[in-house]
Amino acid sequence: MIKLSIPQGTRDFGPEVVRKRNYILSAIRKTFELYGFQPLETPTMENTSTLLGKYGEEGDRLIFKILNNGDILGQAQMAKDSRELGLLLCEKALRYDLTIPFARYVVMNHGKLSLPFRRYQIQPVWRGDKPQRGRYREFYQCDADVVGSNSLINEIELLKIYDTVLTDLGMTGYQLKVNNRKVLAGLAELVGRPDLMIDITIAIDKLDKIGANGVREELAERGLQPFEIGTVMDFISVQGSNDEKLERLMQLLADSPTGLKGVEELRFILGSNLTNFNSAPTIDLTLARGLNYYTGMIVEVKAPESVNMGSIGGGGRYDDLTGLFGLPGISGVGISFGVDRIYDVLEELKLFPATAQQSTQVIFFNPGAEKLGEVFGYVSQLRERGIVTELYPDDIKQDKQYKYAEKRGIPFIAYIEENAPGIISIKNIPLKQRYNVKPEELAGFEF
Amino acid sequence: MIKLSIPQGTRDFGPEVVRKRNYILSAIRKTFELYGFQPLETPTMENTSTLLGKYGEEGDRLIFKILNNGDILGQAQMAKDSRELGLLLCEKALRYDLTIPFARYVVMNHGKLSLPFRRYQIQPVWRGDKPQRGRYREFYQCDADVVGSNSLINEIELLKIYDTVLTDLGMTGYQLKVNNRKVLAGLAELVGRPDLMIDITIAIDKLDKIGANGVREELAERGLQPFEIGTVMDFISVQGSNDEKLERLMQLLADSPTGLKGVEELRFILGSNLTNFNSAPTIDLTLARGLNYYTGMIVEVKAPESVNMGSIGGGGRYDDLTGLFGLPGISGVGISFGVDRIYDVLEELKLFPATAQQSTQVIFFNPGAEKLGEVFGYVSQLRERGIVTELYPDDIKQDKQYKYAEKRGIPFIAYIEENAPGIISIKNIPLKQRYNVKPEELAGFEF
Repeated sequence: MIKLSIPQGTRDFGPEVVRKRNYILSAIRKTFELYGFQPLETPTMENTSTLLGKYGEEGDRLIFKILNNGDILGQAQMAKDSRELGLLLCEKALRYDLTIPFARYVVMNHGKLSLPFRRYQIQPVWRGDKPQRGRYREFYQCDADVVGSNSLINEIELLKIYDTVLTDLGMTGYQLKVNNRKVLAGLAELVGRPDLMIDITIAIDKLDKIGANGVREELAERGLQPFEIGTVMDFISVQGSNDEKLERLMQLLADSPTGLKGVEELRFILGSNLTNFNSAPTIDLTLARGLNYYTGMIVEVKAPESVNMGSIGGGGRYDDLTGLFGLPGISGVGISFGVDRIYDVLEELKLFPATAQQSTQVIFFNPGAEKLGEVFGYVSQLRERGIVTELYPDDIKQDKQYKYAEKRGIPFIAYIEENAPGIISIKNIPLKQRYNVKPEELAGFEF
Repeated sequence: MIKLSIPQGTRDFGPEVVRKRNYILSAIRKTFELYGFQPLETPTMENTSTLLGKYGEEGDRLIFKILNNGDILGQAQMAKDSRELGLLLCEKALRYDLTIPFARYVVMNHGKLSLPFRRYQIQPVWRGDKPQRGRYREFYQCDADVVGSNSLINEIELLKIYDTVLTDLGMTGYQLKVNNRKVLAGLAELVGRPDLMIDITIAIDKLDKIGANGVREELAERGLQPFEIGTVMDFISVQGSNDEKLERLMQLLADSPTGLKGVEELRFILGSNLTNFNSAPTIDLTLARGLNYYTGMIVEVKAPESVNMGSIGGGGRYDDLTGLFGLPGISGVGISFGVDRIYDVLEELKLFPATAQQSTQVIFFNPGAEKLGEVFGYVSQLRERGIVTELYPDDIKQDKQYKYAEKRGIPFIAYIEENAPGIISIKNIPLKQRYNVKPEELAGFEF
């Protein structure tokens, strides 16, 4: 037999997995819709020029490019190196995230859209990362964004969406961690090194992984003097409730208008008690998030501590995403759910309900040609009641049909009794019960 | 501003279109599930070797290939022509249909699957066709297939699925046209030119488009003698009910065991009255279907005659699809829905229900900071009732908020009366009615 495989980092999703994934996606979609977000779908392929330069040098390398049709040999001969060859040969590339296509869509449809535009998008993306456990080359993103509104109410609603969806999925103990990029900018000013803001945020973001001493070392490597490092470490060790942290930040950032603006934003989002959370957002001053387009609140959702999973979602406010495509002045804020990781969390905590895996409820055995019409009638009757029903298609021995039903885990088996005309036998396999039902009683039988 | 575009033959689907498409996909999915079909999703990218050689030479050219990472310049220099270059540079390619990936999946998971395996798959595919009206480079396929069963009951159930879904979508007057490849093989034998079976089927398939004289000419061009052409034309002009046609075919194909087998299959599928159809399948002897892997019944669904649309679905039985990947002896039968064309039919016949386009039902105007908490409470209350509700995020003049609501087509507008504390004004825009509601009455208000 030919040795078959699928590309590294991609997956087939069999029936059970598709059903469980759809359970998660439905919960997310339902809440997105409930909050008035509207669905958008963009093409799998974008022009290469739309994507390049938006994700950093590393990102550019990870974008999958699609070969042009036609005389590519001629084009190929003009290239000086592999990078240039890729550009010459590939006008199209696969979507790398949902944010840039969304920005592109907003710019292209700007005249027609009613702003603020609340859109959600649930589609796969592709990245040429080295595949490893939990990291795939094809994976789904689930994003909700609002563009065209500066109001912090959007931030509150998006946090509430996280809270609602994760509660709907039966999760408890997840944590909504928030911070603000303006506060981090204030910290860099406080340290006296606004030029090193990115370096500082990259280092403190690693506190969880490398500990306080690790962060000190990394800050030193990135060019901070010992007293500057002290200021950073004091800052990120601010403790207490959200209110206590904000109070202390007010003092620490008293000389930074940007920093104070960030504190004020956090105070509105966290302190205004406009809505109730099952798991209230808390300030995490070490939260930085890698993407440099964030300019306001940032958020990351941590899985319950009992599972070792890390972040299951994240987002934030960005002030000028569409500016990349020449349309400045449109602020946006968005969140994203990490479906693959949420799947693993639900699996580990056994939170998938039985209904998420339900398929065929009843199978009628094939009775042979003579009584086929009768059984077809029963099958149609159950389907009209919305009961998922199969008729075993082949006229083979009943024990083989039974084995199929067993292997599929179908709970109800039904067949016509050969020796008792006019009787339908129905077996409830999990309960090990058997019923004899007359045709006229089938309509009322509870499966 | 930068000139933005998306690749030729691809589409952005905005909110209204996504909702209508989902309405169609949900109807199809619901019936697939009801009949016990199970969901499968395969990767967007397949190994190029999995796809090549499966769709004919033309198909091979239309497959989108994905550029390898790494030193492609070195690889490129070894190529003699553009075709070879594509193969050297691209180990991966985009899914071209759902059938080959399904066959690949069945072969790879053969040991684990319970046969017969009924799977459905709803995913996009990509083809480098020249884009034109109604033909896209990215489009969805919706397939249901049964593999591992020779029973003709599957054919009946699949025909019934077409009938159920199209009825659910509100369509009438669609036609289920069926034929059998064995009958066509019998015709080629009858003509005495079994070697020209493909040529004959290709020619007669065009009867709709080019008329009887056109078919005669094409048959001549394809090498048939005048008396052979006469036999073909007599054959395809057999008239009457299904039973009358089958009767006549029995006589015509009396000397062709293959042809008679095809007649017998059609008789079982169409004549057994095992189930009722809203629009019963009819025999169309000119129906051939291009794909050469079909070996038994073939089916094509024609849109209602009042719309000029042609085929909105098709399928058939294939006896050895997994044989392509070295696993012989597994028969299959499947159908496919053409979502884009069904969309156009429903649009033209105005069959999309209002619910397929429903988004936000209620918007609360932003009352300004002071009363924000109160309004947030009302919004949460409606969302808990499952009513899609927005809170306008920005604190701007009410007439601007009103314009947003109007442009979005939101039917209910709600706001707090500034001059009448404790009163919520609710306007039903389509009915031009206005209600004053007390907070404690909101829970019972019917939106």
